[in-house]
Amino acid sequence: MELFTYLLVFLSVGLVGMIFTGAIFKKVTSFENPNERAAHIAQLIRNGAMTFLHKEYSILAVVITAAFIILSIGFNLAAAFAYTCGALSSMFAGYVGMKAATRANEATTIAAKEQGERAAFLTALLGGSVMGFVVASLGLLGLGVIFYLFVGASRIEFIRVLTCFGLGASSIALFARVGGGIYTKAADVGADLVGKVEMGIPEDDPRNPAVIADNVGDCVGDTAGMGADIFESYIASVVGSIALALSAFPGQLHYISLPIMLCAIGLVASLLGLASSFIFKLKISAMLHKAAYVSIAFFIAGTYLYLSMMGMDLTLFGSIALGAASGVIIGLVTDYYTSGKPVRELAEASKSGAGPNLIYGFSIGFESIVIPVCSIALIVFISYEYFGGLFGVSLAAVSLLATVAITMSVDAYGPIADNAGGISEMSGFGPNVRAITDKLDSLGNMTAALGKGFAIGSAVFAALAMFAAYAEEAQIPHLDLKDPLIITGLFLGATLPYLISALTMRSVGRAAWKMVLEVRRQFHEIPGVMEGTKEPDYERCIDISSQSAIMEMLLPGIITILAPIVIKFGFGANGNMALGGFLAGATVSGVVLALTMANCGGAWDNAKKHIEAGNCGGKGSDAHKAAVVGDTLGDPFKDTSGPSLNILIKLMSVISLLLATV
Amino acid sequence: MELFTYLLVFLSVGLVGMIFTGAIFKKVTSFENPNERAAHIAQLIRNGAMTFLHKEYSILAVVITAAFIILSIGFNLAAAFAYTCGALSSMFAGYVGMKAATRANEATTIAAKEQGERAAFLTALLGGSVMGFVVASLGLLGLGVIFYLFVGASRIEFIRVLTCFGLGASSIALFARVGGGIYTKAADVGADLVGKVEMGIPEDDPRNPAVIADNVGDCVGDTAGMGADIFESYIASVVGSIALALSAFPGQLHYISLPIMLCAIGLVASLLGLASSFIFKLKISAMLHKAAYVSIAFFIAGTYLYLSMMGMDLTLFGSIALGAASGVIIGLVTDYYTSGKPVRELAEASKSGAGPNLIYGFSIGFESIVIPVCSIALIVFISYEYFGGLFGVSLAAVSLLATVAITMSVDAYGPIADNAGGISEMSGFGPNVRAITDKLDSLGNMTAALGKGFAIGSAVFAALAMFAAYAEEAQIPHLDLKDPLIITGLFLGATLPYLISALTMRSVGRAAWKMVLEVRRQFHEIPGVMEGTKEPDYERCIDISSQSAIMEMLLPGIITILAPIVIKFGFGANGNMALGGFLAGATVSGVVLALTMANCGGAWDNAKKHIEAGNCGGKGSDAHKAAVVGDTLGDPFKDTSGPSLNILIKLMSVISLLLATV
Repeated sequence: MELFTYLLVFLSVGLVGMIFTGAIFKKVTSFENPNERAAHIAQLIRNGAMTFLHKEYSILAVVITAAFIILSIGFNLAAAFAYTCGALSSMFAGYVGMKAATRANEATTIAAKEQGERAAFLTALLGGSVMGFVVASLGLLGLGVIFYLFVGASRIEFIRVLTCFGLGASSIALFARVGGGIYTKAADVGADLVGKVEMGIPEDDPRNPAVIADNVGDCVGDTAGMGADIFESYIASVVGSIALALSAFPGQLHYISLPIMLCAIGLVASLLGLASSFIFKLKISAMLHKAAYVSIAFFIAGTYLYLSMMGMDLTLFGSIALGAASGVIIGLVTDYYTSGKPVRELAEASKSGAGPNLIYGFSIGFESIVIPVCSIALIVFISYEYFGGLFGVSLAAVSLLATVAITMSVDAYGPIADNAGGISEMSGFGPNVRAITDKLDSLGNMTAALGKGFAIGSAVFAALAMFAAYAEEAQIPHLDLKDPLIITGLFLGATLPYLISALTMRSVGRAAWKMVLEVRRQFHEIPGVMEGTKEPDYERCIDISSQSAIMEMLLPGIITILAPIVIKFGFGANGNMALGGFLAGATVSGVVLALTMANCGGAWDNAKKHIEAGNCGGKGSDAHKAAVVGDTLGDPFKDTSGPSLNILIKLMSVISLLLATV
Repeated sequence: MELFTYLLVFLSVGLVGMIFTGAIFKKVTSFENPNERAAHIAQLIRNGAMTFLHKEYSILAVVITAAFIILSIGFNLAAAFAYTCGALSSMFAGYVGMKAATRANEATTIAAKEQGERAAFLTALLGGSVMGFVVASLGLLGLGVIFYLFVGASRIEFIRVLTCFGLGASSIALFARVGGGIYTKAADVGADLVGKVEMGIPEDDPRNPAVIADNVGDCVGDTAGMGADIFESYIASVVGSIALALSAFPGQLHYISLPIMLCAIGLVASLLGLASSFIFKLKISAMLHKAAYVSIAFFIAGTYLYLSMMGMDLTLFGSIALGAASGVIIGLVTDYYTSGKPVRELAEASKSGAGPNLIYGFSIGFESIVIPVCSIALIVFISYEYFGGLFGVSLAAVSLLATVAITMSVDAYGPIADNAGGISEMSGFGPNVRAITDKLDSLGNMTAALGKGFAIGSAVFAALAMFAAYAEEAQIPHLDLKDPLIITGLFLGATLPYLISALTMRSVGRAAWKMVLEVRRQFHEIPGVMEGTKEPDYERCIDISSQSAIMEMLLPGIITILAPIVIKFGFGANGNMALGGFLAGATVSGVVLALTMANCGGAWDNAKKHIEAGNCGGKGSDAHKAAVVGDTLGDPFKDTSGPSLNILIKLMSVISLLLATV
């Protein structure tokens, strides 16, 4: 195939994805809410989300400008432009995805009220698919264009431009994921501590001044944050893979373009997967999983066809299939530990108090990482040994992420369903509507844990692809663990995830405390708030969350960006080697910690929900109180500190790869 | 110096140590308790401790016999004998140390009653020093004799015999530390949950059937367990170091013997340190720290003298000084995070509930590992780069452990003081005596956290020395992180500490539950127990703890032993390389996790004590309740799962080194 043909394929698939996204976006956002109260609340949530995005984007404008100047002086204009494109793509995806999500939430509520469960479910899923497909399409378009323009340039220039595109995506992910994680937990914990515990009013009660911020937080953390995180993984794995293809198959376009082609096939497969789940009218509880499985099957079949058609090395197919399967393995294991038998046992243990709940919860969380991490390790080994060497490993990474459109759609469904419940409660739609939204929400909770597992797994794979590319580009002959320099790097790197976790845990504590003070103040100082006769000052709470999120993410962000630079230049002539050990240490210690946090959090959350559903004594029992304690720790684990480590792992490898081209 | 001269030096220093130990042992155990009640209770504790030791040793007899047969068939009789000597030394040290500790506890109580604070303190310290000096002296004697007998044999035979000696020590450490950790927390949590929470009787109340088991647990976990752990580190670091000396300085006796000579100098320095703290009549709060610092100063001066006298390479002195200093750094940082400002802030945070207590506690724990681990990493780098290469790194490890006699004495002081408080309470000696024992106990708590930090730091150093020796012996050309095989090993290894932690956390939960049921049964079914008119069946509780400890340590123990064997043979021709990556992964992920657990636990424990001392609302306040929740999680973190990882890290490297000689 000619170079231009590749461009045509990438552009046309990407544009099909964009058109599909646009169509759904239009459908979702053209919704006119017939219920005034629900429309008002949805408007508040939408405004809150946009407040955060605007605040975030106005700081990002400075960051992007600064990076543009640094990159154009340090490298060249092409690198600076690529960075900007990467950043703007991620911002655009976040904006569009959030717009859709904060409109789909009210549409879901109304659908639940007027049309019933299935319609509500489909509305939420379609709303989420905007985020999924915009991420996949934009990534494909950006990568396709860079490929076309720079594959003919020098190897180092090509890799550098690609890496800068990835760095752009990483910058946004840092703000969206770390900041978003702090936002959502500050609001959540703040709302619960005063509202539920001190004042004794139920969840999602409109009298609670932090209730809108809490609902905004779900979108900010789980939609925008997750989207930027996955987008970063998607780009990083492709960039790493292309760099390795350049070494393994120099000058052979069909191999060098293969990682992007996998994304194109994955996007088509995701469309087919989503469509088929509508066509076959599955039960809604099956749809979320089935849509992803069907997409993966289409993807695997499609890549096999493509490889044979092009007469390419079919051993590579082994890596591709393994990579695609790894997502399923991680998903199933995560599902077991965060909503299977261990969770019911955890709920049982809660009957003996908070101590047993915590001890047993950690036991689950620690154990839950073993199979996923060992699977990743073995897939890396098998891909390398039997299915195409380092390039094969990187293809496994790309394959896990290729069907990102459908995975992300399912992820983004969760916060929409959650929000729909909140709007229904605040609009006083009564128990029948709430029952539907609760059911949709509980489906979302299941997929949320899966999504977190997927996000971490994909971050590791992406980081490994980048790591291999880094070692290649930095022209390090060996990264030998027999050399104490590498061991030193390894240990230094291993501490970083712990430092970042310490900072983010503390940030949540601090931000939640500010929220607590404000919510208390409003309850006590503004007459009528507690009585429900006067609307509380929701904006103040949204401001506090937004402000805290952005202030608190600075320190961990700066440490993450500076760490590889300090290691590289601090160790002088040995800098590249020390940095290699450092990256390996940070990745390995980060992935086990992040997965533990995510799964502990998921298990505690679902154990609490299991009790609230009437088991082990139900709501208000001692078991419930114990489960709430676990959940309070699990919340920042799974929504702030854990996800922040994904960013840490990837951002450091992107920066290192860029440093290797200096 | 002649070979025989070395033997003479090692034997004479070792014998001086043993004579000193014997003298103190005699003094401590010849104590005649004038108070019948206190004597009875001390007798119960002593019997309980011996019950556990007997049970443990009768299983160990089988293990040792089996290992003897395997080693004598697989290798030869010398290896089998060395193994047995290592095992018997550790068992003997544990036995003697426990005997002394369970006699010194009552002597301390009586001294507090009749002679006052200082006398009580000195009694407890002397009691602890039996464990410290017997460990150091036996290690020195064993290593000295093996050195004399086998340094002339083939290199591989010499290393193998040394490693088998280390393996013997490791086998005992596995049982003593993992089993001891489960024992102590099963008793502690079980006693508290029913006694304090359900029945509302105070701590150390003689009516509580688990109270004796709880006191026994302190000795079993913190005396015998800690002693075996440190003994293992001590041997492992010397073995690793000698193996590296054989490569770096083949045939040069003064270098090959240097690691053992450092132990000899360290033992003399510890004696001087202990003596000087008696001579200068320091304030008791200063004595525990000062004794260690003075010993380290003597050690550093002594090694400098020795190196110059022997005309040896003085650059090695840099590594030795750094290694000795690393213990101080780890100690100071641990002290700050587990009893400094962060703990007071943690107590403050507890006022807002269990959630903030847990979130802030993790923030402290995560952060606390950064400086110690980075220090270790940098010391490794500097030692290697400037002070003697790999051999220098291993000397740093030996130096940290050389003054083990004094460090371990201080560690063993803690549980004696704790026990003394229990005996005083149960004997009804009243608040004046209790005030003294409480003060001694709080000093012990401070050193307990330090001791845990030291144990982990030394385990890492020992593992690194063993790791370097392994890579050398296995004749692996490279352990290249660019090779996905090594990355695979690294990731597989990183999961192991999490798996072991999951198992040990669950074991504590299960064992504590059995204890809860038994304590409840006794309170409800045996008339007179609750009223205090009938002595409860203490032995049943001791049996439950002993039985659980030994049953529950089997699975984690077997996994730890089998893991390196499975990796080596599972990866076939690449086995040695995969195992190298595996060890690195397990060590790096283990050390950060173990330190986090130890320091989280220490911080929660001391925050609770800070509140109990009357701050933040004092005992019974909401802050106190919140702090108790954190402490309940922290207990198995710091006393079971964390310490088990020390064993994991070392035992796997010892087995790997042995496999390398196959």
